[in-house]
Amino acid sequence: MKNPCHKDKLTSLRRIEGQVRGVQNMIEEGKYCVDILNQIKALKNSIITVEGKILETHLRECIKGSLDGSENFDLKIDEIIKTMKR
Amino acid sequence: MKNPCHKDKLTSLRRIEGQVRGVQNMIEEGKYCVDILNQIKALKNSIITVEGKILETHLRECIKGSLDGSENFDLKIDEIIKTMKR
Amino acid sequence: MKNPCHKDKLTSLRRIEGQVRGVQNMIEEGKYCVDILNQIKALKNSIITVEGKILETHLRECIKGSLDGSENFDLKIDEIIKTMKR
Amino acid sequence: MKNPCHKDKLTSLRRIEGQVRGVQNMIEEGKYCVDILNQIKALKNSIITVEGKILETHLRECIKGSLDGSENFDLKIDEIIKTMKR
Repeated sequence: MKNPCHKDKLTSLRRIEGQVRGVQNMIEEGKYCVDILNQIKALKNSIITVEGKILETHLRECIKGSLDGSENFDLKIDEIIKTMKR
Repeated sequence: MKNPCHKDKLTSLRRIEGQVRGVQNMIEEGKYCVDILNQIKALKNSIITVEGKILETHLRECIKGSLDGSENFDLKIDEIIKTMKR
Repeated sequence: MKNPCHKDKLTSLRRIEGQVRGVQNMIEEGKYCVDILNQIKALKNSIITVEGKILETHLRECIKGSLDGSENFDLKIDEIIKTMKR
Repeated sequence: MKNPCHKDKLTSLRRIEGQVRGVQNMIEEGKYCVDILNQIKALKNSIITVEGKILETHLRECIKGSLDGSENFDLKIDEIIKTMKR
């Protein structure tokens, strides 16, 4: 089975890269800690959103796909539970 | 009061930027969702580590500093509680 | 379809109830804040473990079950994604 | 120094105990997994709220107190950073 395509998440990941550089600039410019911490919270939220979308695609495509082919549904569930626990 | 310097965190933030680009590359190359999700977990952990270090510096320097000058300790605590709740 | 049985999680939930009462007792006895906070961390970890087990059973039984019956797999995925986002 | 009083959090902790028993009842009654998971999310949020309030009291009273007495501010900061990292 071919992996699902996640290219629709690249725009978000480029924005996340921009947010990381934004935090670097705040540090270079000696900005106030609490302002930097607030930017980091925003960055974390952006990452959590992208993560949720990739998980959703995975559940919809790979988990579903594992039921009608040679792939094992139970192994797929083990795998995703293990990843969610990390 | 001058803001504390966080330049010692720039190395970690450059590594985080590299991790974000790594996730983008995995997506471009059509890597498997679970491998991408594991990379995103690693990225999140790196960000949480840097966040903790900035918070630590803030507590040690700004909160302490707020007690011997014109700055108000209670306002500083309100501010950090508000940021931690986000 | 009948709901899966979660009775094997009752022992953990009774232990969690005991942990909540333990925190109440620490407060009644005027224990030190950091010791109370550490107990709350342990309580949170116990809850996260039980939550993971219920999610695992759900994925293994309900999600799988939704593919061979009248139930709609896509609706089940929407539902679990919505719950995970909360 | 005397520990700060957290008795104003006991009402929340009794409500949390009720929520834990609510989850036990849902399991006893064979309720649907997703409904149980949503109750657990509500329980986790209640705990996070109480935890935030205890942390806030700690910062306002113990951290502040550590500056005008025999207690060491830096040790108090080490201690709270260690607890937050758990």
